[in-house]
Amino acid sequence: MRPLFIRNASQLVTLAGSSTAPLVKEKMNELHIIENGSVWVEDGKIAAVGTDEELSQQFQERIAEAEIVDATGKTVTPGLVDPHTHFVYAGSRESEFAMRLSGATYMEIMNAGGGIHATTKATREASKETLYEESKRRLDQFLLHGVTTVEAKSGYGLSIEHEVKQLTVAKQLDETHPVDVVSTFMGAHAVPAEWKDNPDGFVRVIVEEMIPKVSELGLAEFNDVFCERGVFTPEQARIILEAGKAYGLMPKIHADEIEPYGGAELAAEVGAVSADHLLRASDEGIRRMAEKGVIAVLLPGTAFFLMTKAANARKIIDAGAAVALSTDCNPGSSPTVSLPLIMNLGCLQMGMTPAEALAAVTINAAHAINRGHEIGSIEVGKKADLVLFDVPNYMQLIYHYGMNHTDTVVKNGRVVVKSGRLCY
Amino acid sequence: MRPLFIRNASQLVTLAGSSTAPLVKEKMNELHIIENGSVWVEDGKIAAVGTDEELSQQFQERIAEAEIVDATGKTVTPGLVDPHTHFVYAGSRESEFAMRLSGATYMEIMNAGGGIHATTKATREASKETLYEESKRRLDQFLLHGVTTVEAKSGYGLSIEHEVKQLTVAKQLDETHPVDVVSTFMGAHAVPAEWKDNPDGFVRVIVEEMIPKVSELGLAEFNDVFCERGVFTPEQARIILEAGKAYGLMPKIHADEIEPYGGAELAAEVGAVSADHLLRASDEGIRRMAEKGVIAVLLPGTAFFLMTKAANARKIIDAGAAVALSTDCNPGSSPTVSLPLIMNLGCLQMGMTPAEALAAVTINAAHAINRGHEIGSIEVGKKADLVLFDVPNYMQLIYHYGMNHTDTVVKNGRVVVKSGRLCY
Ligand SMILES: [Zn+2]
Ligand SMILES: [Zn+2]
Repeated sequence: MRPLFIRNASQLVTLAGSSTAPLVKEKMNELHIIENGSVWVEDGKIAAVGTDEELSQQFQERIAEAEIVDATGKTVTPGLVDPHTHFVYAGSRESEFAMRLSGATYMEIMNAGGGIHATTKATREASKETLYEESKRRLDQFLLHGVTTVEAKSGYGLSIEHEVKQLTVAKQLDETHPVDVVSTFMGAHAVPAEWKDNPDGFVRVIVEEMIPKVSELGLAEFNDVFCERGVFTPEQARIILEAGKAYGLMPKIHADEIEPYGGAELAAEVGAVSADHLLRASDEGIRRMAEKGVIAVLLPGTAFFLMTKAANARKIIDAGAAVALSTDCNPGSSPTVSLPLIMNLGCLQMGMTPAEALAAVTINAAHAINRGHEIGSIEVGKKADLVLFDVPNYMQLIYHYGMNHTDTVVKNGRVVVKSGRLCY
Repeated sequence: MRPLFIRNASQLVTLAGSSTAPLVKEKMNELHIIENGSVWVEDGKIAAVGTDEELSQQFQERIAEAEIVDATGKTVTPGLVDPHTHFVYAGSRESEFAMRLSGATYMEIMNAGGGIHATTKATREASKETLYEESKRRLDQFLLHGVTTVEAKSGYGLSIEHEVKQLTVAKQLDETHPVDVVSTFMGAHAVPAEWKDNPDGFVRVIVEEMIPKVSELGLAEFNDVFCERGVFTPEQARIILEAGKAYGLMPKIHADEIEPYGGAELAAEVGAVSADHLLRASDEGIRRMAEKGVIAVLLPGTAFFLMTKAANARKIIDAGAAVALSTDCNPGSSPTVSLPLIMNLGCLQMGMTPAEALAAVTINAAHAINRGHEIGSIEVGKKADLVLFDVPNYMQLIYHYGMNHTDTVVKNGRVVVKSGRLCY
């Protein structure tokens, strides 16, 4: 593999220095920018980082053999990391969305066959091949928006067979597509219709059958629960997350989206890697998360799409918890792949600064999926996952809102998007 | 010129039947969609519209000579029309934006050299060539987002010389770029620093010197005023708009953005083509606009970017006024070119349905710039301005939010964007 030399970025936003722990408080504003910055890539890894002057001197005898990417006038950042998605699914639910906009109630939508059960049905019915194809199209779109690593949750199968199918497709995508896919088991995404009169029975299936099976097959790194009134209680969530820990699955939790329900507190108690949503998390819950190093993964797109008020990122950052941002890509409450828009929303609807928003989709997002040591910043030894945005400084990523500025994407040292088009 | 045959769109959204007046009330939901729809284009104009079966029969002996665009699986709409922009400007103001996000006050931003006067300074200092180049880049971006006609206002020159320069550049862009640029004179955009102690004197310059000059040079079709407390009063606005009318310039007005100030009422009184913004317009003002057929051009991106509540499109539509949507593209309060995002905002933050949002950026937007007879719908005899979006139905344009689904753009019968890239 020829070395790759990315030259002379107007801003090279390295986010260096936080591979062991996420950025918190004021640190989230320290992006460690190099002007006229360059990166030398060797064997898919970052081999050197500095000004173009420094690097062209250091590598002067090898420039001729390198593939050159001219970043003049552009902003280069680490490949974006999306730490919370449900992008492996079948079907589409735009008509339910249109009904909602026309004033239909939740029950009317349910009666028309909408809601999560519609996606469960479509995902169960889909063959592995169909599920792969539909999800791959979304993964291509993620890549075109600058995303090089995506977390993917199961939870539309809701039976052993179909949860395994969903996670197997995620694994195939990870192996065959440039974007890295990091898997989370989420059997506790909803109580399926066939268990609705016996949710504890479904919890037992998750704990006694699904988790051991997923672990045995090596299909997931994380274990997630939708902890919300009417779905899974904090007590059920604790049982499920502790069971996962016993099998080596790191806990994550969908917490306090609809009401304060003790989700943030539970995340701290079980030592979750992240607690996600948090629109209604209590101050005490956030305090405990900060204390225990639980990362707050915030999902402003979901609030935007559901037409509700977003989580207060400003308050959570000021309380000392590390914040990451994510699309929450899913067919019901956030059908998008655009982390660029999510950054816009982080600033415009959650009180973040542009620097915080960028840290939240790079190094902090990497930590939220336990990858802070290998991605999320531009540092020697890390994977060469990089994005060239067609703007002269990182602030314009947010300022020119609603637009995808991704020009070039480098994944593992390979150019996979060029002039905004896939070329892998 | 070879005929162009756009074939077999999953949905061909024609918006037919409203070339003489904009869509109002329930009519905004009637998109007149043809499934498996096709369009035959001859000499830059739409020559036939129907199902693919109908048209392939009708033109069977000429298909061989035509350029074919396969729209299978895609949604085809009229080229989008942006009826309110200030996209001809120089400079960039992202640092002011970042200051604002970090909590800086209006005065702090002004003292740091921010605000509209910063853009006036940059635009005055820019050569015609620089202004052309910077604006052309934005026009390319508009086109990549499916926009085929853009209104452009002057108002960063604020002296005869520089207003004429700005309008001249807009005219050059119209003549040299595929996107049609429709010009509006807006000398009354702000009171420039040199007139701040004598705003009435500046109004006299607008009325006695600028309007006659702009009219003589044929540089604009419309005349617009920023009517807001501290900028131009309704009395000043009336004088300016009436003066324009005497020179054949059709009135438009920036109305009631900050407070109810009688702008909507004035628009009805002077017979404006549109009143724009309207966040705080009075019910009575909206009622009068509906009565007089003044189009409400709403700018949800500006509210989004300024972190305030958007205008209530739902209420305005229900009151019977025709609604159009626009980016308000400008460097201070809305630095975007994305009408796709504006449609998302129309639905998610203003209470519109997906159908209404689409009507608001096509046929109603065309009427808002007096072009309803030649663009804004897919009908025989109109300009062949069309967009192919990479979604199977128009609802997904809104549902898959924050993404630009533009795949192919046809302008005057010529393919100018292909697979999301410029090819003109
Ligand atoms: Zn989720
Ligand atoms: Zn304006």
